[in-house]
Amino acid sequence: MRFLAPTIEVRAHCDLPCGVYDPAQAHIEAQSVKAICEKVADNNDPDFRTRAAIIKEQRSELVKHHLWVLWTDYFKPPHFEKYPQLHQLFNEATKLAGAAGTKGSFSVDTADQLLEKIDEIADIFTATKQG
Amino acid sequence: MRFLAPTIEVRAHCDLPCGVYDPAQAHIEAQSVKAICEKVADNNDPDFRTRAAIIKEQRSELVKHHLWVLWTDYFKPPHFEKYPQLHQLFNEATKLAGAAGTKGSFSVDTADQLLEKIDEIADIFTATKQG
Amino acid sequence: MRFLAPTIEVRAHCDLPCGVYDPAQAHIEAQSVKAICEKVADNNDPDFRTRAAIIKEQRSELVKHHLWVLWTDYFKPPHFEKYPQLHQLFNEATKLAGAAGTKGSFSVDTADQLLEKIDEIADIFTATKQG
Amino acid sequence: MRFLAPTIEVRAHCDLPCGVYDPAQAHIEAQSVKAICEKVADNNDPDFRTRAAIIKEQRSELVKHHLWVLWTDYFKPPHFEKYPQLHQLFNEATKLAGAAGTKGSFSVDTADQLLEKIDEIADIFTATKQG
Amino acid sequence: MRFLAPTIEVRAHCDLPCGVYDPAQAHIEAQSVKAICEKVADNNDPDFRTRAAIIKEQRSELVKHHLWVLWTDYFKPPHFEKYPQLHQLFNEATKLAGAAGTKGSFSVDTADQLLEKIDEIADIFTATKQG
Amino acid sequence: MRFLAPTIEVRAHCDLPCGVYDPAQAHIEAQSVKAICEKVADNNDPDFRTRAAIIKEQRSELVKHHLWVLWTDYFKPPHFEKYPQLHQLFNEATKLAGAAGTKGSFSVDTADQLLEKIDEIADIFTATKQG
Repeated sequence: MRFLAPTIEVRAHCDLPCGVYDPAQAHIEAQSVKAICEKVADNNDPDFRTRAAIIKEQRSELVKHHLWVLWTDYFKPPHFEKYPQLHQLFNEATKLAGAAGTKGSFSVDTADQLLEKIDEIADIFTATKQG
Repeated sequence: MRFLAPTIEVRAHCDLPCGVYDPAQAHIEAQSVKAICEKVADNNDPDFRTRAAIIKEQRSELVKHHLWVLWTDYFKPPHFEKYPQLHQLFNEATKLAGAAGTKGSFSVDTADQLLEKIDEIADIFTATKQG
Repeated sequence: MRFLAPTIEVRAHCDLPCGVYDPAQAHIEAQSVKAICEKVADNNDPDFRTRAAIIKEQRSELVKHHLWVLWTDYFKPPHFEKYPQLHQLFNEATKLAGAAGTKGSFSVDTADQLLEKIDEIADIFTATKQG
Repeated sequence: MRFLAPTIEVRAHCDLPCGVYDPAQAHIEAQSVKAICEKVADNNDPDFRTRAAIIKEQRSELVKHHLWVLWTDYFKPPHFEKYPQLHQLFNEATKLAGAAGTKGSFSVDTADQLLEKIDEIADIFTATKQG
Repeated sequence: MRFLAPTIEVRAHCDLPCGVYDPAQAHIEAQSVKAICEKVADNNDPDFRTRAAIIKEQRSELVKHHLWVLWTDYFKPPHFEKYPQLHQLFNEATKLAGAAGTKGSFSVDTADQLLEKIDEIADIFTATKQG
Repeated sequence: MRFLAPTIEVRAHCDLPCGVYDPAQAHIEAQSVKAICEKVADNNDPDFRTRAAIIKEQRSELVKHHLWVLWTDYFKPPHFEKYPQLHQLFNEATKLAGAAGTKGSFSVDTADQLLEKIDEIADIFTATKQG
């Protein structure tokens, strides 16, 4: 496993499922999660909180799914060599959308940390598009 | 049904499911649909074409779903009064992603028409955000 | 956009996905929503209420989905010309199954309003079948 | 396992998920399956056939699901005692919607056999409602 | 309907969808359900309980689905003749994962009963594999 | 990022979603994928091949999903320090179930490679359970 490859050679990153990837999908869902946490902070109705939990669970799952797709389907070995932190970044981001993250709490701070990780991934994504 | 209301008064457009809407979701999926049509035009392998049909069916369904959510959950009566063409626009856009549209063919032209309709909706969406 | 067309000419309303449409699907799910609201009114157990919220969320989503399919896939331009209220009717019905409707409350009244809207749609549907 | 119980005593057949069951749901999806088979018989386009296969697979799965729900959630031990053929009827009906049935062929005959089985189940369902 | 057939003759039990069946799938999900019930017994946080209910609902549904697939797709008429209790066993097992079972309570006992039924089914499954 | 930590200290690996993980789930689905590839090699019927493609697409997606869940939800930072190859192993395994792997071909060899990768992951999983 070489971490710093001298040259980067990325094959067409997708044989069929369209070649269209966009971290915006994970970002939009994570914004929803944050908005849900904020609304719950302003609302004491227990039924409202239950609905918020149901929807936050679904939206967090979508965040995980969109990130997993980017990690497996968009990024290729040369990317992982050029950005050796990428595996861990995705692992931390998806964990932040899971039980120890936005699934398990209504914390706006946790949602913000998730959004920051997604932004870090989006920056690398953009760089690979321009490379 | 009044079509031109003198004043526009939109209540918070979403009680809980987050308030985060974005036509980008439909647009990304429609771009996938277009990319699939283009790739099939360059590839004669029948198994490839079958996979393309499977994925195009799913992506077109996602386009429809994201548009339906915008139409039902984001847009409110004052919007429909200010933009009387909005109902028909959504109906035509979702039809363009259905059996008579991108589900039923590999036409890049049809995919382009779908993208144009989504852009029209996105323009109105943006205007309502600034209003 | 002509609202009163002199003649109605509807092409086969579905190229493939079967041509079988039935407002009964939305109606059955909406009846479930109503029954859930009634049962919750008779039961104070908080776990029961949580389950009721989970299931009501799913069933309301199915109501929306079945209605959206009818609106996009079954009804054709000549129908919308003959029944100019149809767009708004579907928009109101799907909103009644959403956050401002049965998703957002356990109100039996709201569920009844939803059922009435579906019945209005079903009447038009039946008329188009006989036309 | 007693097959002919002297008295029938059915408890409320559903604690929460609404109590609303209807064999119409399986019937509507099975009609779709049949319509798909008929349309494929009239159409030689290979892309059309591929789409038909995708949709027939989904609709057949929905037939199975709706039947399974009836079998597990609606029918109760006293029903199975009164109608000892019920288990086998459901098993045969769901098999008819599976790989050896409508999933595995475009046979209109098979679709008709499936519809007949669903009708047999619907007759018993109706009888239990009136009982 | 003969219950005790002299000879057993099972055709290839699956025409395509792979021929790979395994009661382990239902068992793993049922273990999750049990673990959820145990964790809720040790935790008073209402948000935790809500999440537990959401996940328990999904996992119980998966138990039902995996069992239904075995019942309809794996087991064949000769199996049902050799094991006449099999229909009822599956019906009881799926009911134990439903509203009257693990969906409707946080009872570890109910989850244990569900696991026992799945084990009974798994024993018969194993016997048919060796037959 | 330390790659060789002197001591391993894993917290309870799951706050709620049950703590039950098992690489068997990915393995069962991957076996299905392989069985589908083998059956297609023995069958020239184009409708059969189309169904095989539909089911292979779904089963491959399930392989990816089950692996992603293990990677994000089961494995913790100390595991990744002890097994530095784990990120890449999961990335390669999920790619083997994607467009460049079992989704994009009917190759039994590719399915075998996927099964081998899952076995490697399962060995590490077992070791962490005993640790």
